[in-house]
Amino acid sequence: MRLFYDIIADKRDKRELTGEDISYFLESYLHGELSDYQMSAMLMAIFFNGLSENELKTWVEKMLFSGEVLDFSHIDGPVVDKHSTGGVGDKISIPLAPLLAELGFCVPMISGRGLGHTGGTLDKLESIPGFSVNIEKDRFNEIINKNRMLLIGQTPQIAPLDKKLYALRDVTGTVESIPLIASSIMSKKLAEGINGLIIDLKIGGGAFMKTMESGRKLAETMKDIGKRFNTHVDVLFTDMNEPLGLTTGNSLEIIESVEVMKGKYVPQVTELVLRMAATLMMTFKMCRSIEEGEKIALEKLQRGTVAERFRKTVELQGGDSRVIDEPEKILPSSKFRKEIFADQPGFIQKMDALSFGKALVQLGGGRLRKEDGINYGAGFVFNKKVKDAVKTGDLLYTVHYDDKDSILKAEEYLKNAVVTTGHKPPSESSIILGSM
Amino acid sequence: MRLFYDIIADKRDKRELTGEDISYFLESYLHGELSDYQMSAMLMAIFFNGLSENELKTWVEKMLFSGEVLDFSHIDGPVVDKHSTGGVGDKISIPLAPLLAELGFCVPMISGRGLGHTGGTLDKLESIPGFSVNIEKDRFNEIINKNRMLLIGQTPQIAPLDKKLYALRDVTGTVESIPLIASSIMSKKLAEGINGLIIDLKIGGGAFMKTMESGRKLAETMKDIGKRFNTHVDVLFTDMNEPLGLTTGNSLEIIESVEVMKGKYVPQVTELVLRMAATLMMTFKMCRSIEEGEKIALEKLQRGTVAERFRKTVELQGGDSRVIDEPEKILPSSKFRKEIFADQPGFIQKMDALSFGKALVQLGGGRLRKEDGINYGAGFVFNKKVKDAVKTGDLLYTVHYDDKDSILKAEEYLKNAVVTTGHKPPSESSIILGSM
Repeated sequence: MRLFYDIIADKRDKRELTGEDISYFLESYLHGELSDYQMSAMLMAIFFNGLSENELKTWVEKMLFSGEVLDFSHIDGPVVDKHSTGGVGDKISIPLAPLLAELGFCVPMISGRGLGHTGGTLDKLESIPGFSVNIEKDRFNEIINKNRMLLIGQTPQIAPLDKKLYALRDVTGTVESIPLIASSIMSKKLAEGINGLIIDLKIGGGAFMKTMESGRKLAETMKDIGKRFNTHVDVLFTDMNEPLGLTTGNSLEIIESVEVMKGKYVPQVTELVLRMAATLMMTFKMCRSIEEGEKIALEKLQRGTVAERFRKTVELQGGDSRVIDEPEKILPSSKFRKEIFADQPGFIQKMDALSFGKALVQLGGGRLRKEDGINYGAGFVFNKKVKDAVKTGDLLYTVHYDDKDSILKAEEYLKNAVVTTGHKPPSESSIILGSM
Repeated sequence: MRLFYDIIADKRDKRELTGEDISYFLESYLHGELSDYQMSAMLMAIFFNGLSENELKTWVEKMLFSGEVLDFSHIDGPVVDKHSTGGVGDKISIPLAPLLAELGFCVPMISGRGLGHTGGTLDKLESIPGFSVNIEKDRFNEIINKNRMLLIGQTPQIAPLDKKLYALRDVTGTVESIPLIASSIMSKKLAEGINGLIIDLKIGGGAFMKTMESGRKLAETMKDIGKRFNTHVDVLFTDMNEPLGLTTGNSLEIIESVEVMKGKYVPQVTELVLRMAATLMMTFKMCRSIEEGEKIALEKLQRGTVAERFRKTVELQGGDSRVIDEPEKILPSSKFRKEIFADQPGFIQKMDALSFGKALVQLGGGRLRKEDGINYGAGFVFNKKVKDAVKTGDLLYTVHYDDKDSILKAEEYLKNAVVTTGHKPPSESSIILGSM
């Protein structure tokens, strides 16, 4: 076998690695025969020199087959999942999953936790008393057969190599590499045995991808991987310069999600949920146009069956299903409120997602380190959004918090987060920036 | 303090690191608070993005002051050392050190061991029975005061950070970086407390630097570092396409060195020894021209005092000083000889240094891994050099070996090592390609 450092040097010097090299390198790492320091040198070389199409295919394959691969071939109808690259106030998965189930999809949705300024679907779900995101395999199949959906966390059996690699990338400055991001997302999702995947690729200040250009590259890479593994990948590019919807914070976002599921039109959130559902319906030929798909999906929301599907899911996963009826009573909430008012008239030019995301962490509603706990009640409720006109004294947003020290720290991040100057709203832009 | 991965990301994204960042990063590594995997990611980022002048200065400073710094301020005359970037048949240090001592320099020479296809001065010296390259500090000062020279190995007290970094670079494909090579060489040499350093920068197939262009960059970087730390650095660029001189192998090169010290003119070896001595003499204003310096140095060799200085050194370092009188008797030698003859007439176009270096490792005369032992007697004696005319049946070289298996393996590397075709010698080129 070749020496590990010769393989690293090949990548460093832009010589294409063979499938055999990559297999040997990754398997050795998974089995502890290749050290972390050699892998991190390789990851940094990949940051600079990328991976060719063939290299990437083997890389994904090795990650995908490093663990269990689920099999849904016995299920009627398309099996789909959704992935978001992470943002502030992003609760889309929660109303989307039961909507998709109501539309005839099977949705074994696997989500993540929040880290840094971006929130995580699992943390939001866990704010529902009793709700468990860790489901044993037999129970998993039982729930899918009964309910055609569930909302769970990553299992240790799925793509363990990705877990090991991700932990290393996280501390070695090698996260921000398009082939490494793409292979990490796709290997986990492909291991779920799905037929279709929709990716919400966030662009902007509060997102991982700051520009459309880098976003497009990432999308292309993920679509290519999907094609090579016979899984259809749809990508929506969505704006993440302001927090998504009207709340950010775990309990608060569950309340907002329940409203969406019950048919209330929540700006940005309902729009995005409908577009995602319609996009998947188009892919699987369940409608003739996006408009028709969105109409069908909206009817489902308004008819109340989506909220009922979510109620069943909460019950099956051990949660208190009264959350659908009176979420404010059931969910943890913060002791204190602080209202923030406009100090001058104008149009809102900016509500900075990154600042609100970081402020939420300070309130305890997010975590800086993986082992940190979460304050479920803390967060922000927005009365105004970008482009809204405001008068002096108008309520801009309300802070929900428990601890007087924490709000002082949060306010440090919020000093310049909202800009209300300007006599015109900022130029028109939609939450949905494009699709691929 | 900043997060380690933010510092790595700065280097990765070409943001100049502050002195504080580099100090913190390197000190944390030295004290085990920064992991190998974070350091190897940084090293790979440096491979791609280099180090700015200011970054490099702090980097060298931290390595240099990570251990003991010697002080020769009580010594009369310039204190100098020589460094070679490593080659095949490179025994220059051995006759050069006593010659420099005879010329009035003080020479606390610290050399290295062979690894891979390049030989090491320490291994050659250790072929002399009893010779010790590990000298305690008190004894070190005693020898310097008595003899104005010694020939020793790296001590654990000198630049320990470089040792730790080098071991990591060696296994992570991050050796071949000009700022990392330059800082490694210079930090060790500056820690010796010398006033002047001459570097033999090998260029060619058997060397680390394959082209003059990369060699010039490395030379400039080392000269700049020297300037910033008030140490004069001379660089000679020398050819390393064919083995240097008439032998390669540990005992064999000691025999050749003794001949040079006794005033015999050995092609390439005597030429290079004289030029190095004269270059240092010019730097320290001990002659008016290189030609004059070479003449003075040659006289020292021919007068026999250089060999006597080496005899004293061998005695002081515990070795059998009869090696000066009858080296063939005293030094270990191999059991077998195999002579290789020209199979066609012509001029020798090539004697490939890399091939002979790798073949020597197969004979046991070099090491593949640091822990390997050495067969001192094994090696090659060259009867012909590049540019020589040969007739069919002329002796080209003799292999000295102990083990019949090993010569078979060595011959694998030697199949195309010597090219005798062509009715003209290759175009004129000297062992010395230039200086800086």
